[in-house]
Amino acid sequence: MSFDPATLRFNDAGLIPVIAQADGTGEVLMMAWMNAEAVQRTIDSRRVTYWSRSRASFWVKGETSGNVQELVDLRMDCDKDCLLAIVRQSGPACHTNRRSCFYTSISEGSEVELMSPE
Amino acid sequence: MSFDPATLRFNDAGLIPVIAQADGTGEVLMMAWMNAEAVQRTIDSRRVTYWSRSRASFWVKGETSGNVQELVDLRMDCDKDCLLAIVRQSGPACHTNRRSCFYTSISEGSEVELMSPE
Repeated sequence: MSFDPATLRFNDAGLIPVIAQADGTGEVLMMAWMNAEAVQRTIDSRRVTYWSRSRASFWVKGETSGNVQELVDLRMDCDKDCLLAIVRQSGPACHTNRRSCFYTSISEGSEVELMSPE
Repeated sequence: MSFDPATLRFNDAGLIPVIAQADGTGEVLMMAWMNAEAVQRTIDSRRVTYWSRSRASFWVKGETSGNVQELVDLRMDCDKDCLLAIVRQSGPACHTNRRSCFYTSISEGSEVELMSPE
């Protein structure tokens, strides 16, 4: 069955959430958003390309920092309203220079930092 | 630092996306939504509890199917607008009876099924 990004279910802003997961380790690195064109650009270029909501522009992950995400596999969920990008991450994924954005655990009512900047 | 669910950044509908990841294997199982009370209920009960947008009600995952998610760890991302729940999943996570909702790969312009119902 051929794939058309337009068949994905985008929210009212035309965006779909995308989970980036590291190939090999399986670590969840970050969550960001794509519009239909960002999905197509990601597929065509194999460079994960999000839509930056704050800058209202395409965001080729790592374009300025060098911390690029090379696409290994792109998956969609059962109701087509979320994507999972399996990636080869260069350098830290998080803008805080941590490997993953999910470095804070909520444990017994407290915030616990699990990971330091690299 | 103590944690207050109200400090999370919810969208205009009062919801935050939550990624469920299997403890041990690291498999990404599903993505769903919580409101502040669902976050608190999840922390208190250790049973992952989402907010069902379609039913507009709390959704204790597995309450009817038995395919519950026992919370192992709850993490938030750097800008506090996405959660990662590390869970012990009983049975399949997906309503299609597959282990994960992300069973469709988008490869070379086609949709490829990676996983069968259990």
